[in-house]
Amino acid sequence: MKNSRSIGLLIIVFLALSVFVIGCSGNTKATSAKSSIGENEFDPAVWGKYYPLQYESYLKNNEGAKTEFGGSVKESKFIAEPEIVELFKGYGFSKEYNEDRGHTYALKDLLNSKRVGPKTPGSCLSCKTPTAPVLMQQMGAAYYTTPVIELAKKAKHAIACADCHDPKTMQLRVTRPAFIQAMKARGIDVNKASKKEMRSYVCGQCHVEYYFQTDTKEVIYPWANGIEPAQIEEYYDKINFSDWEHPDSKAKMRKVQHPEFETWSTGVHGSAGVSCSDCHMPYMVKDGKKYSSHWWTSPLKTIDISCQVCHQQDAKWLKERVHNTQIRTFNMQTRAAKTLVQAHEAIKTAFANPKADLNKLKKAQTMVVKAQWYWDWVAAENSRGFHNPVQALDSLGQAIDYAYQAIELARSAY
Amino acid sequence: MKNSRSIGLLIIVFLALSVFVIGCSGNTKATSAKSSIGENEFDPAVWGKYYPLQYESYLKNNEGAKTEFGGSVKESKFIAEPEIVELFKGYGFSKEYNEDRGHTYALKDLLNSKRVGPKTPGSCLSCKTPTAPVLMQQMGAAYYTTPVIELAKKAKHAIACADCHDPKTMQLRVTRPAFIQAMKARGIDVNKASKKEMRSYVCGQCHVEYYFQTDTKEVIYPWANGIEPAQIEEYYDKINFSDWEHPDSKAKMRKVQHPEFETWSTGVHGSAGVSCSDCHMPYMVKDGKKYSSHWWTSPLKTIDISCQVCHQQDAKWLKERVHNTQIRTFNMQTRAAKTLVQAHEAIKTAFANPKADLNKLKKAQTMVVKAQWYWDWVAAENSRGFHNPVQALDSLGQAIDYAYQAIELARSAY
Repeated sequence: MKNSRSIGLLIIVFLALSVFVIGCSGNTKATSAKSSIGENEFDPAVWGKYYPLQYESYLKNNEGAKTEFGGSVKESKFIAEPEIVELFKGYGFSKEYNEDRGHTYALKDLLNSKRVGPKTPGSCLSCKTPTAPVLMQQMGAAYYTTPVIELAKKAKHAIACADCHDPKTMQLRVTRPAFIQAMKARGIDVNKASKKEMRSYVCGQCHVEYYFQTDTKEVIYPWANGIEPAQIEEYYDKINFSDWEHPDSKAKMRKVQHPEFETWSTGVHGSAGVSCSDCHMPYMVKDGKKYSSHWWTSPLKTIDISCQVCHQQDAKWLKERVHNTQIRTFNMQTRAAKTLVQAHEAIKTAFANPKADLNKLKKAQTMVVKAQWYWDWVAAENSRGFHNPVQALDSLGQAIDYAYQAIELARSAY
Repeated sequence: MKNSRSIGLLIIVFLALSVFVIGCSGNTKATSAKSSIGENEFDPAVWGKYYPLQYESYLKNNEGAKTEFGGSVKESKFIAEPEIVELFKGYGFSKEYNEDRGHTYALKDLLNSKRVGPKTPGSCLSCKTPTAPVLMQQMGAAYYTTPVIELAKKAKHAIACADCHDPKTMQLRVTRPAFIQAMKARGIDVNKASKKEMRSYVCGQCHVEYYFQTDTKEVIYPWANGIEPAQIEEYYDKINFSDWEHPDSKAKMRKVQHPEFETWSTGVHGSAGVSCSDCHMPYMVKDGKKYSSHWWTSPLKTIDISCQVCHQQDAKWLKERVHNTQIRTFNMQTRAAKTLVQAHEAIKTAFANPKADLNKLKKAQTMVVKAQWYWDWVAAENSRGFHNPVQALDSLGQAIDYAYQAIELARSAY
């Protein structure tokens, strides 16, 4: 019985592989193009002449479309998450904090951001244009300290083909030194990565938590201890890192960036070997030609080719499962944010009292930093918990606990 | 391209079905037995003569074996969760609260429990023996009010074949009126259930949240509003239900039972149509005969035939995924429990102050009841979050929030 079943399963696996091989034939890789694109050709339109289908999908990044919890429309986060104005008080993210538009707007939206001023370092350009890695090579340390508004004058194109592809071989490549170094610190040599791994690494070179080294402004990914939020927190604790001081609580705060790569890595999809591209760059077919979509957006817009390749359930059911996680995550995130607002206020109130025990207030500050770290780990991540539901809700539960501990410490200080 | 792939997929589906059909042949259903087992035959050994393989597996319920977060060994929960002694203070569960052993011990362990006394109602027998439904029919309302130690004298066998099988047709059946009524209240007629649904309903007739109607002691499943923890809480709020008064906080508490069915239903496995039996009663093969395991225990002990039927990953990976959820759930559960202990204490302290604002303390009591409800929803459920990780961590996050709100209210009352 078991044998007949095993043979049946073997036949299935064989056929599945056959389908995969059939599915992979007839792709649009125009080998003649391999030597026609210049090493420093950053204009996607030029690449698009050789890869018209990929380029056509890339141009869809110019279109905006919302999903229930995100999407690619430039909308202020202050609307759905008013607490963040308080939580990032004294820091750029309280001036402006929008949902990101498509990758094609990366350069434009950076330069138009209220968070960018004359002193904003060049480091901020690092993930916005394929010109950045070339400038890093040319300028060395000066790249990072040059104001971004100066540096950006040298860049014509936002995120494009050259960021992830070698123009000669068309192979996937990573071009950001910070990623390569951080992976090395984790014991991973990206030069030895498989194609499957590269289908996530190209995204992971930017969709990560990072910080600027205080003096040099060099971009660093804080992964030396690991990529769990607790391990990165430990890293920052050790180097005593902070981004700014909150004017109410006087706590030395940290801003989480967009740790999609870290979050996905330890979630079920990441640990099962499902790459970023499997969901976000699904295979398309046009005129008998198969190609990867280069429209980077929510897979909820392409459930049939993103999710249903593996999951046999109908689209409605799949969407409901995603929303179940996202709604619960968003509600818990809001719960944590409201408690955090109270925590900053409680510490402020305590500081106003001359009898306050400063030792207790220091502990309260430590707790509010901790709480905001775990809240922001989820709030700043672009999936509303979906990339790793258990980690997301675990983080938010901790955020709530630490925020209340901050409140208790502050209130007991006088 | 798409067509060739679709055809390939169709072949896979066809072969998968073939494997399933092959796998289902040669089962051990001895049709000659159908008329040989008496209607009120509750001795599993008698059934076992006709179904020796199922019976052999059933006898494994006599063996105890732990898993990292549970298993079937009679071990006090006070060891890993010392907080529960405080949380159930004044109630039976603070006297004794053990991990359950196998179903074959259900009757024995009930009668030996320190929670059972001379006045414990007959209602407690309802899920411990197949004799119970017969007694309910014979005795009517008196069944529930008769002391369980009296009633149990009429029962010889613990949970056995007759609980879930019709002795004449061997079809699955549900025998607990409380389940049938509660499903009806949800608009579900269990008489119209498919075999697939019955493979969960037979478990769901007992592995649920329930309460005893205050006067009649009738067993009721509080599902009229739905089966989410918030919906059941709303049900209890409406009828102003409580199990006992906590001696410290004087709050009217509720004990959650073991809501596996509710938790699984809205989790990914339940909503995808994976039944309780699919994982907990995997198909076994012996001497060319296929049968369902009747050893009800953690699927972590049978990953190859429980999980890997659907999931292609290796056992180590699957176990790690389960443990990732369970460890985070257990840590968050402990975090919630510790905060809850503080909440009861804070209310007690406030009550000791004659100046305390009783209105605020009433609100604090409401919050501690709420917090303990959401904590216990996870703590009492037998999967350490696995049956529904998102719901579990969502519940625990809420528990922490409400527990701190109770503390704040109590401390601000004087």
